[in-house]
This record gives sequence, C-alpha cells and structure tokens, in this order.
Amino acid sequence: VVDGRTARPAAGRRDQKKRDTRRALAAAAERLAFERGPQSVTVEEIAEVAQVSPRTFFNYFASKEDAMVGFDPAFLELLRAALIARPAEEHPLEALRYVLVPPDGDVGRMADWWTRRTRLIHDHPTLLGRHLASVSELERVMTEAVVARTDVDEFYAAIVVAAAITACRITVFRWEATGRRVSLVDALDEAFAHLASGLVPPVAGPAARSSA
Amino acid sequence: VVDGRTARPAAGRRDQKKRDTRRALAAAAERLAFERGPQSVTVEEIAEVAQVSPRTFFNYFASKEDAMVGFDPAFLELLRAALIARPAEEHPLEALRYVLVPPDGDVGRMADWWTRRTRLIHDHPTLLGRHLASVSELERVMTEAVVARTDVDEFYAAIVVAAAITACRITVFRWEATGRRVSLVDALDEAFAHLASGLVPPVAGPAARSSA
Repeated sequence: VVDGRTARPAAGRRDQKKRDTRRALAAAAERLAFERGPQSVTVEEIAEVAQVSPRTFFNYFASKEDAMVGFDPAFLELLRAALIARPAEEHPLEALRYVLVPPDGDVGRMADWWTRRTRLIHDHPTLLGRHLASVSELERVMTEAVVARTDVDEFYAAIVVAAAITACRITVFRWEATGRRVSLVDALDEAFAHLASGLVPPVAGPAARSSA
Repeated sequence: VVDGRTARPAAGRRDQKKRDTRRALAAAAERLAFERGPQSVTVEEIAEVAQVSPRTFFNYFASKEDAMVGFDPAFLELLRAALIARPAEEHPLEALRYVLVPPDGDVGRMADWWTRRTRLIHDHPTLLGRHLASVSELERVMTEAVVARTDVDEFYAAIVVAAAITACRITVFRWEATGRRVSLVDALDEAFAHLASGLVPPVAGPAARSSA
C-alpha cells in the first residue's frame, strides 16, 4: 500500500518497476502454462523468461500456480478502494457493476483476459484450487467493501457480491459460447437488470422470444 | 428413466436394487476418500466395500471421482421433474427454493451432506474438477427446467438458477462458519428474500445491526 504522505518520485518509480516485474512474471507464467501445461513449468523457467532471479519471483508470488491464476493483491486493493469510493446512495449492484466492469474500461480486453483464464483452468484442472481461492478472496474483499461503504449487514453483502460475480460469470460464458454475437456490455446490463428486478421473469411472448 | 406405462413390480424391485447399489458405491467411495485421500483409493477397493465387482462399479460410475463427488443422474432428473411440476405462476426463485431445499425435506441432513462434500473437496482439490462439472450439470438441468416450465428466455433462466444456487452456497457456508447458531431454514429464507427484493440493501440501524 502506497502511503501518499511519504510518496516521492523515486518511490513512484520503484512502485512502477515492481508492478512491471509482477506483470512480466504473471505473463510469463501464463504463457508457459498454456504452452506446456502448469505441471511441466518450473519457477526457474518463469523467472528466466521474465529476466529476473527465482528469488525475485518469490518476492511476488507464493507458487507458480499463484503466478498463473492468482489475483494481484494491488488489483484487489484497487477494487476495494473503488467500491468504497462509490456514492453511498448508489445501489450496491450498480456500484459492483461499475467496479467489476468499469464503463470507461476496455471491456473487450477484459473479456479476452477472462476467456484465457477460463480456458487455462478448464484445460488444466490442477489450477482449480488456486483459482477458486482467488475467487473467494475477490468475494471477501468485495463483501468487506460493500459493508464498509454503507454499513449493511455482512450476510446481505455476501449475497449481493456473490450474485454480481455469478452474473458476470454466466454472462461472459454465454457470450463466448454464442460466438460473441451480441455486445458484452448490453448482455451485462441485461444480467444486472435481472438481478435488480428481483429476478422477475421477463415478459414472454413471440416478440420477446424471437429477439432473445 | 422409468417409463410409467411399462413399469411392473419386478421392474420396480430391479430399480430399487440399482438405486441401493449406486448408493452403496457412492457411500463407500466417499468414506474411503475421507479415510485415505482420493488418490490412494482404487475402484477395486470401492467395489469390494460395496460388495460388488469392479465391472459393476463401471455400470454406475465413469470414474472413482464420479463416485466420490458426482451427482446421481436420477437425482438430477427428479429435480428437473419437480421444478417443471411447480405451478407456472410461481416465481422462479420460489420454485427453485422449493426444489433445492424442499420445505418438507430434512434440511439438517442436507446440510450435513453439503458440509461433508465441501470438506472433502477442500481437503482434496484433485476432486475439484469433477465437482465443478457436477455443479455445471446441476445449473444446466435447472436452467432447462426453468425454461421448460414457463418458456422464459434462456439467459434469464441461467441467471436466476445461478443466483439461487449461489445464494444456497453462501448461506450454508456462513451458517457453518458461524457455528450453526441460527436456523438454516431462516437463513435461506433471508437469502432468497434478498434476491427477490432486487438485492435492495436492508434497512440499516442499531436495531437491525445488533440482531445481525
């Protein structure tokens, strides 16, 4: 965590360098995992591709699986801060939507990342344990942030967070499965609208069904 | 699938025997997995404990992992039929709640099963792949049934099913984590009420919070 009071240009450059190193290691880990399967990849190889020492690798990651499918703690902290910064009167679903899929974000790039991640895990179930731990961590951080921003009870917060993440999962999965034919942003809007409506069935009928 | 028109007492007895055999194999697989870890257990041992041949084992299961954490296809068919049988005017969330946690069911026994299953998978991540395939299968069957009962669009159905299953997961997890101090049925009621409300934040305040 950066302490704003003591941040100096040198510290800023050091932080940037750390972020770059972390990103290079994660990219190397992902690429090697795709090429040869996680089990055949060693920490030494990942470090070599990213041009750092194995010792440096362990400054950033606890294991090769962590480098392949872990979430960056700094990214989780950004999500937490972004969620807490949303206006208190905003519906938690809106706030979660805003933070998980920022309207000014590159949704195509996000979807590509998601697709690669899903494919990697699907092809290599040995990564599942680490992946699910990442998702639990994401749920925990988001739940804490939902509680922190409006002081709602934690059970409610856990439900709204899990529902939002699940809606994203279903939406991206179906968007991929149907050949990305619709706008992902529109599909996410629809999914969150279903949640906000209390999951009331949409009006059925020939017109509605033919456009589905 | 039992065909009612041709079912005879002998066929009924045969079906019952099959169900018993399947149950005995699954119970043996689960017990051995807990005792020694899934990797040290063989199909031969599971069959021996259930007093059938390894060949018989493969009439019921594709793999030992399937026996340990798969869902019985007959159970999934029961869920499908039960969901389709719910009144068409019933809110899909209500129908899913009714089917996933039947009001006349033994919720304590269900929770025990869930706890065992969760612990087994947590302790032995090699079972995760098969487990997640089971959950996907459950989602698929329930989604088809939601579409079949009222002809809503499939995307909506997938969202409502995933939200309902996620709510059950969060509820049972938190109920366990907090020492089962509250009624699981009440907690499930609360979770489904949150979903049905459109995930509107519950009214906060000292009273609400002290009872949370």
